[in-house]
Formats: sequence, structure tokens, C-alpha cells
Amino acid sequence: MLTLYFARGTCALASHLALEYAGADYRAVRIDFASKQQQSPEYLRLNPKGRVPALVTDRGVLTETPALLLFIAQSFPQARLAPLEDAFELARANEFNSYLCSTAHVAHSHRMRGYRWADEDAAIEAMKKKVPQNVGDCFEIIERHMLKGPWVLGDRFSMCDPYLFTVASWMKSDGVEMGRFPKVAEHYSMMSADPVVQRVLAAQNAA
Amino acid sequence: MLTLYFARGTCALASHLALEYAGADYRAVRIDFASKQQQSPEYLRLNPKGRVPALVTDRGVLTETPALLLFIAQSFPQARLAPLEDAFELARANEFNSYLCSTAHVAHSHRMRGYRWADEDAAIEAMKKKVPQNVGDCFEIIERHMLKGPWVLGDRFSMCDPYLFTVASWMKSDGVEMGRFPKVAEHYSMMSADPVVQRVLAAQNAA
Repeated sequence: MLTLYFARGTCALASHLALEYAGADYRAVRIDFASKQQQSPEYLRLNPKGRVPALVTDRGVLTETPALLLFIAQSFPQARLAPLEDAFELARANEFNSYLCSTAHVAHSHRMRGYRWADEDAAIEAMKKKVPQNVGDCFEIIERHMLKGPWVLGDRFSMCDPYLFTVASWMKSDGVEMGRFPKVAEHYSMMSADPVVQRVLAAQNAA
Repeated sequence: MLTLYFARGTCALASHLALEYAGADYRAVRIDFASKQQQSPEYLRLNPKGRVPALVTDRGVLTETPALLLFIAQSFPQARLAPLEDAFELARANEFNSYLCSTAHVAHSHRMRGYRWADEDAAIEAMKKKVPQNVGDCFEIIERHMLKGPWVLGDRFSMCDPYLFTVASWMKSDGVEMGRFPKVAEHYSMMSADPVVQRVLAAQNAA
């Protein structure tokens, strides 16, 4: 059985959703960021990075959302969460996930976690101030060049969709108006209405 | 034929090396960051993100290093650049690449490209000041938990090795002493001595 360690409101939601879409036999364990549980000796033994998500498998612990998403897609091929049969289409999917983790998520992180990159309060405030512009610029690229619609890869639902939904769910608190991006907004609304998404969000809130 | 757009001293080196290790039929085209060629209308038509690398294939343009590395590995399977036969081992490789792109590369970027995340000079200076610590922390994680040795995945050379070499090549100018990390240093020295690496670096310098 797989065990996913998650915290509420984090990118671990993408992997949690993918496990549910895959029909995987898994349990989800909540890590409480408010009490800094991710820095506890127990959790650091599991994931020395002190971050979520972490997926415990019978061969070891895996981390990093894009790696988890592809691993889940390959482990449950019947769920068709990735274009595994076509290296170019798979590269498109990985390109999308890589952009989210290295650019869009990083743009967002400068609002709440600026202390990672500077110690001075004024610098942390300066980073926070630029978040709406940077997150907006990322979604501009996604809207115009990456999200084919209705799903990220076009007609085919994939592992990219729960990840986009997750990152898009931060947009409002990042000070970006989703209405500026009609395709992203339509995608968000389809995902929000999906019983799988509602089930996973309810499970995270109850954990 | 494949065309790789690169700039000197950037993460595009990882894909350039992978193409050479793969024995691919490709050409490499240099983009001059000093004259902001990455923001030219011609280049933005190719890659709206205005970044490198970009790989032009007969089916379209691909971007993002982790996606390019896996695409190259899958397109040239005889080069054995990724553990394609084992989803768990492949996830380990993708996890490594994902950590480099979303955390280690981002830590490094705050030295030269702090203007991405704040407008104030003082904030940009504050970010610069924290780079040695952050890049050092990343390599601490890599040394202790991720780089198996002698290669990233252990005895097997893979797409992760050119990527680690690329990011490690920035360490000195980021103010981090490589000697603190014996396995990383040994890896860097093996890669530096490799004729493939020397050939690609010479080609980038001559372009």
C-alpha cells in the first residue's frame, strides 16, 4: 500500500488527487505545518527535505510532485493519467508539470515563504509585493501557450490537470483575478465540480 | 533533426550534454543573453517564456530541462540515459531532476536574477547575500541523501549526471566550496574529465 504525506493547502494535493483518480490503494497522512511537524525528527527521517508531498512505497520514499505524478501514472496505467505511449506527448506533459514546479509554484512561494531567500523583513515584504505580477505572468503563459483546453493536454484528461487545479487554487490569495484567464477559469470550475476533487478536499479537511 | 537553443553558462548545458551522450543528430544554436536575444520577437515566437533551453523537434518545440532530458532518453533508448524499464527507478531520476530545477537552480538564480522576485535594490542584495547558504543547503541534501555515487543513480550513468554537473558548475561563483561535498566533487571531477563534456563545452564556447 502507498502512503502519501500531505499538508493542507500545499502542492501535495496534486498527488493526492492523482492517487484518487488512479483508483490506488493508499492512505493519506496529514503533516501539520502550523506545529512545524515537517521539521520533526520522525518526518525528517522519512523526507530529509522537510517538505511535502512524500510518497512511501514498498521500495522507498519518493518526493517531488512531477516525479510522483508520473510514477502514479505509470503504476496505474489503466487510469490513463499520462500519454505513456508517445514520448513527445509525454514530454509536453512533463514540460507543463516542470513549469508549474520550477516557475509558477516558486512565484507563489515568495508570498508566504520569502524567508527562504532573504533574511531582512523589508526584502521579504518586497518579494511579497511582486507576487501578484509574477503569478499573473505565469498564468498568462499557461493561458496563452500551454493549456490547450478543455484539459491541459487537450481532449485528454491527464496528471497535469490535478496539478494545474492545485496551483490555480492559490491564485486568489496571491492577489490574481482568475477571470483574466478564461481557459484556466473554465478548467478550475470543471475540476471543482468533480466528485473526485470534492472527496479528496473533504478528506484533507477531515484529516 | 533536432535543434537545441542554448545560452552559455545556463542549464541548457544539461540537455546539450544529453544530446551528445545520446549520439543524436542535432545542431546547437547559441542565444546571446548579453544582447537580450531571448527577448527578441523571433525567439519569443519559438519559446514565449524567453528562456533556454528550447528543443525544436519535427513535432514542435519543447522546453524545461527535466522534460527535455526524459524526452532525449526515450528518443535514444540505446544510450540508456534513463531507467525506462522500472517506474520506481525512473521516479528516483525524475525526483532528482525535479529537485534541481525547482530548488537548487532556483536557489542559484537568486544571485544573478533576484530582479525576478523583487524590484527594490536592497531586496535584490538581500537575496544575493543568502545564496551561499541556500545553494550550500541544497548540495548538503544532494550529498547526503540523493547522489548515490559514483553516478547519481549509483553504478548506472544517466540523464541526471549531466544535470548535476551543470548545476554544480555554478557552485563556485555562488560562493560555495565544493570540497565540503566529497561525492559531488568526485562526480564533478569525473564529468570534467569526460571527452564528451569537454567537446560540448568547447562547442558552446566556439558558438
